[in-house]
Amino acid sequence: MPTLSSRGIAMPESPIRKLVPLGNAAKERGIHVYHLNIGQPDLPTPQEGLDALKNIDRTVLEYSPSEGLLSLRQKLKQYYDKFNINVDVDDIIITAGGSEAVLFAFLACLDPGDEIIVPEPAYANYMAFAISAGAKIVTVPSSIDDGFALPSMAEFEKLITPRTKGILICNPNNPTGYLYTMKEMIQLRDLVKKYDLYLFSDEVYREFCYTGAPYISAFHLPGIEEQVVLIDSVSKRYSECGIRIGAIITKHKELKKSIMKFCMARLSPPLLGQIVAEASIDASADYMLMNYNEYVERRKFLIDGLNRIPGCYSPIPMGAFYTVVSLPVDDADRFCEWCLSEFSYEGATVFMAPASGFYTTPGSGRNEVRMAYVLKKEDLAKALRVLAEALKAYPGRTMPV
Amino acid sequence: MPTLSSRGIAMPESPIRKLVPLGNAAKERGIHVYHLNIGQPDLPTPQEGLDALKNIDRTVLEYSPSEGLLSLRQKLKQYYDKFNINVDVDDIIITAGGSEAVLFAFLACLDPGDEIIVPEPAYANYMAFAISAGAKIVTVPSSIDDGFALPSMAEFEKLITPRTKGILICNPNNPTGYLYTMKEMIQLRDLVKKYDLYLFSDEVYREFCYTGAPYISAFHLPGIEEQVVLIDSVSKRYSECGIRIGAIITKHKELKKSIMKFCMARLSPPLLGQIVAEASIDASADYMLMNYNEYVERRKFLIDGLNRIPGCYSPIPMGAFYTVVSLPVDDADRFCEWCLSEFSYEGATVFMAPASGFYTTPGSGRNEVRMAYVLKKEDLAKALRVLAEALKAYPGRTMPV
Repeated sequence: MPTLSSRGIAMPESPIRKLVPLGNAAKERGIHVYHLNIGQPDLPTPQEGLDALKNIDRTVLEYSPSEGLLSLRQKLKQYYDKFNINVDVDDIIITAGGSEAVLFAFLACLDPGDEIIVPEPAYANYMAFAISAGAKIVTVPSSIDDGFALPSMAEFEKLITPRTKGILICNPNNPTGYLYTMKEMIQLRDLVKKYDLYLFSDEVYREFCYTGAPYISAFHLPGIEEQVVLIDSVSKRYSECGIRIGAIITKHKELKKSIMKFCMARLSPPLLGQIVAEASIDASADYMLMNYNEYVERRKFLIDGLNRIPGCYSPIPMGAFYTVVSLPVDDADRFCEWCLSEFSYEGATVFMAPASGFYTTPGSGRNEVRMAYVLKKEDLAKALRVLAEALKAYPGRTMPV
Repeated sequence: MPTLSSRGIAMPESPIRKLVPLGNAAKERGIHVYHLNIGQPDLPTPQEGLDALKNIDRTVLEYSPSEGLLSLRQKLKQYYDKFNINVDVDDIIITAGGSEAVLFAFLACLDPGDEIIVPEPAYANYMAFAISAGAKIVTVPSSIDDGFALPSMAEFEKLITPRTKGILICNPNNPTGYLYTMKEMIQLRDLVKKYDLYLFSDEVYREFCYTGAPYISAFHLPGIEEQVVLIDSVSKRYSECGIRIGAIITKHKELKKSIMKFCMARLSPPLLGQIVAEASIDASADYMLMNYNEYVERRKFLIDGLNRIPGCYSPIPMGAFYTVVSLPVDDADRFCEWCLSEFSYEGATVFMAPASGFYTTPGSGRNEVRMAYVLKKEDLAKALRVLAEALKAYPGRTMPV
């Protein structure tokens, strides 16, 4: 039998995925499973997007341009204008979700052996895309004790080598919900400038910032405009993860040309998704505000509820719809598995994402889980009750009940 | 400025793409351009697919499973049954077009420096995906003088090194339209078996075989079932290139697991495309036959027309909807460019794909172009007239008029 590639073997299997069969088995036993483990919002896709889908009157569903439909790119430009993100239509390249945007950014910027520094905990798939490109993710630890604030620049500088090609941030952050401050962003800017690095900025949760202050994009940072590679996606903000529409935005002309070669090789991003995405950008202010308010309420409800459970601690996430929580357990991987396989309370259990999958430093985040508040408040209430009972019953509990 | 990756720089720019601005400029000058250069069928998408699109009544367009919707995979299994391609639902992984299928197959099978042997001329994007994976495509030349038949196994064996991991065929072939015979397929099977190689088999043009004999899939070859990696796509057969739905099919369990890691990293193939693809598989026999007959007629019309032009020669393509034609010109790149930038006849010109983009051996195919018969017969007739006149007028003509 011919052998597999070593990169395929090196790709980590997500600890969340490993739990999926247990979750399914629990359901088959008639247990209700509260899914706090996924980033799939339950909120409706905007009616504008759904209507656009119904109104497609093409008879041939043909290739769209490799860079994406011009009309969508124009619409996105107007959208970015509202955030004072000053980009040209030509700076925007449409991709199959934020996922393809990250992959193509890495393929175009990083050679095998090149390194990028990423604060951890971090979105696990960055690692997979780095491995696909043969590049290395070097993590700089952030800690729940600092509320997952950006590590000091001295910590970043310690990790810089001649192979360091960039810094990657996700802002607001998945999995922590942390929103980088202006001061932190300026520090990053200085670092990126000093060492001539790329700043990969994943801003897919831009709409979900709970500070009241305007969002700070990497493109707001003066002096590094050509070093910023912005990753975007309509998935989260319009609750349409399935349509697979994202974007790479760069002002670096040569990089844009290089990324376009990868885009041309795969011919075209999804046509139907682009039509829905374009219409979704016209979602009413009411729709956006309703969703925003919903997340604000859920956030307060979940975080307050968690911090009331003895031994639990969650910092207040200022963005996105995730939080990383520390639990009074010996091993969150084991606890999450136990919740799905051995525990239920009033016919229900909780599915949480062990935080270990978001760290590369062994042992980090061992008592932490990520929760997504993509459930209705009533369900969050029940999930919190189940969690509290589970923590009481779990044999690996680390503090007295 | 941080540097670009060398793989991005190494990616070839397609000679077809380079002509696109010239084609656009011609249109702006009011010249009608007959597009023989692209693989986008003009035939309608099946009504079943379009209806399914209209009937989507979801309110949240959410992620589909990373391996694709179960219902689509079940439907595909039934489809393959009809071709005696015996695969399980679990052997089928849905991808964003055949493109992602090739990329993931390469990423999962090939390490940097690994080699695969591909008969040339070949679909240019295989090269791009190989470069993305750090792998090397080694070409074995086929020739228009043999009608682009499979080169002898001795020619393949000369190229086998310790780094050779597979053979890649596209059958029926893009760009030549060649359909491999049973004898050739058995030879390939023996070679693949002898050297323990993968057989990557791109079968996206399966529906378009003009021999009357049943299609021979790589999965029909006994004894190498676990070495076959089948690449498929609904794009061409249902004229829905824009929905980006393809598949990788493998019976190699470990490989399947490895490919799934790449699939999980990008979360999900396009949801809407999957819904359309699933319904399209129900396209009526009438629809399939009508399209088939249309291609049969166009093929005869185009090939006969070409071979009537003095100095032109096209073998009869037995599959797909392409042919590679030799022309009485010094340099087909220059001729194609000249047609778009300096020539018109009765207000029209032709856009052809120079064959140089399908060869890696320098100088090969220098007087050849690829034509796709994705235009109506009336348009093909006009395009042929324009081509004949262009060949008379072209200054770099190699034989007396």
